[in-house]
Amino acid sequence: MDLTIPEAIGAFAEEARRAVYAAISLRRDVRHFLPDRDVDTEVLERILGAAHLAPSVGFSQPWAFVVVRDRPVRERIRESFLRCRALEAARFEGARREQYLQYRLEGIVDAPLNLCVAVDLRPRAEPILGTTVQPEAVRASVWCAVQNLWLAARVEGIGVGWVSIVEPAVLRAELELPDGVEPMAYLCVGHPAAFRNKPMLEETAWLPRRPLAEVIHRDRFRG
Amino acid sequence: MDLTIPEAIGAFAEEARRAVYAAISLRRDVRHFLPDRDVDTEVLERILGAAHLAPSVGFSQPWAFVVVRDRPVRERIRESFLRCRALEAARFEGARREQYLQYRLEGIVDAPLNLCVAVDLRPRAEPILGTTVQPEAVRASVWCAVQNLWLAARVEGIGVGWVSIVEPAVLRAELELPDGVEPMAYLCVGHPAAFRNKPMLEETAWLPRRPLAEVIHRDRFRG
Repeated sequence: MDLTIPEAIGAFAEEARRAVYAAISLRRDVRHFLPDRDVDTEVLERILGAAHLAPSVGFSQPWAFVVVRDRPVRERIRESFLRCRALEAARFEGARREQYLQYRLEGIVDAPLNLCVAVDLRPRAEPILGTTVQPEAVRASVWCAVQNLWLAARVEGIGVGWVSIVEPAVLRAELELPDGVEPMAYLCVGHPAAFRNKPMLEETAWLPRRPLAEVIHRDRFRG
Repeated sequence: MDLTIPEAIGAFAEEARRAVYAAISLRRDVRHFLPDRDVDTEVLERILGAAHLAPSVGFSQPWAFVVVRDRPVRERIRESFLRCRALEAARFEGARREQYLQYRLEGIVDAPLNLCVAVDLRPRAEPILGTTVQPEAVRASVWCAVQNLWLAARVEGIGVGWVSIVEPAVLRAELELPDGVEPMAYLCVGHPAAFRNKPMLEETAWLPRRPLAEVIHRDRFRG
């Protein structure tokens, strides 16, 4: 697939706009992966390349992508997930707890690979432009990269599932992250069994989708 | 423009994939806006709708978008920018400080509108699924929404510029954010004078682009 980008595009045609909105609309958090189907090397490279094109404060490009295939490592990370899930389940009551425990919330070992997206906060020779009063802009850049990655994966037909139910300390130890490099997102990546029509938690009525009008405010925050 | 999304798309055609990669590649941080050209209401709604389709931990949808048009408010926010810029310039040495001060780093008053993307961290009746061991996943969701917004804007021909050189306390006060609602991104939005071929800080050699291979690690972090 030739994905060469013309030097400058004046405007996106309607079909191209539609494709971008479709990717945004059809992106899903995937937890069921096809067994024995790996992610093509070139596809993975394109997806990571998309992440690397994210905006970053002061052009700091503070991200690191650890491609995790090692199975024992992933099994230990999954054990952390199981501990955290038990801890979290206890915070829900009765029927909600039952519902919580029925959800499949990860595909750590089933997916052909995992990706730990990390931020490199180690001191640099010079301050990062734009971080003096908002140092958290460095982390923000990394999460923008995650969204780029997720959308690129979607159009490549690759599923991505974000596991936030895992201890950062376990990720640091297993992936040998040095001091100052922090895990920001732990992702399961592979060919999905399917892309759901709606997010699982919406489809199963865990929570409703908020109306758009509710999240838009004019000049001042209300409510 | 009809942007209806089919119920389910099996796969994205090559042209659609190309469009998504093009949006990711051609997205820019815009600081020069065309005067006297507003953003169409429907376009703004589509862009905010794209943000609202971002992934969110536990389907929490914790974002709020404050559309800021009030000019005196924006002028006071710009005064905060000027104070912060002076503070930050002092952290760079000699020629680097000169270069820093020559950059245009915002379009707060020139753009027809600003957007403050905020996170609502106020306590809820029930914990948010997925946040017990990684509470920062709530903020992460909001920054994923910012990236959706930015890409949608790009394909609509709308420029977005992120101003991190502004005091969060000023944003909280000016936009009347209640306790627990925190500004995550302050964006200038409008028709751009142009979309640069490269990020300004790359084009002007503030920092080089890192090679992709440098940010990819296998199983363990190295270096």
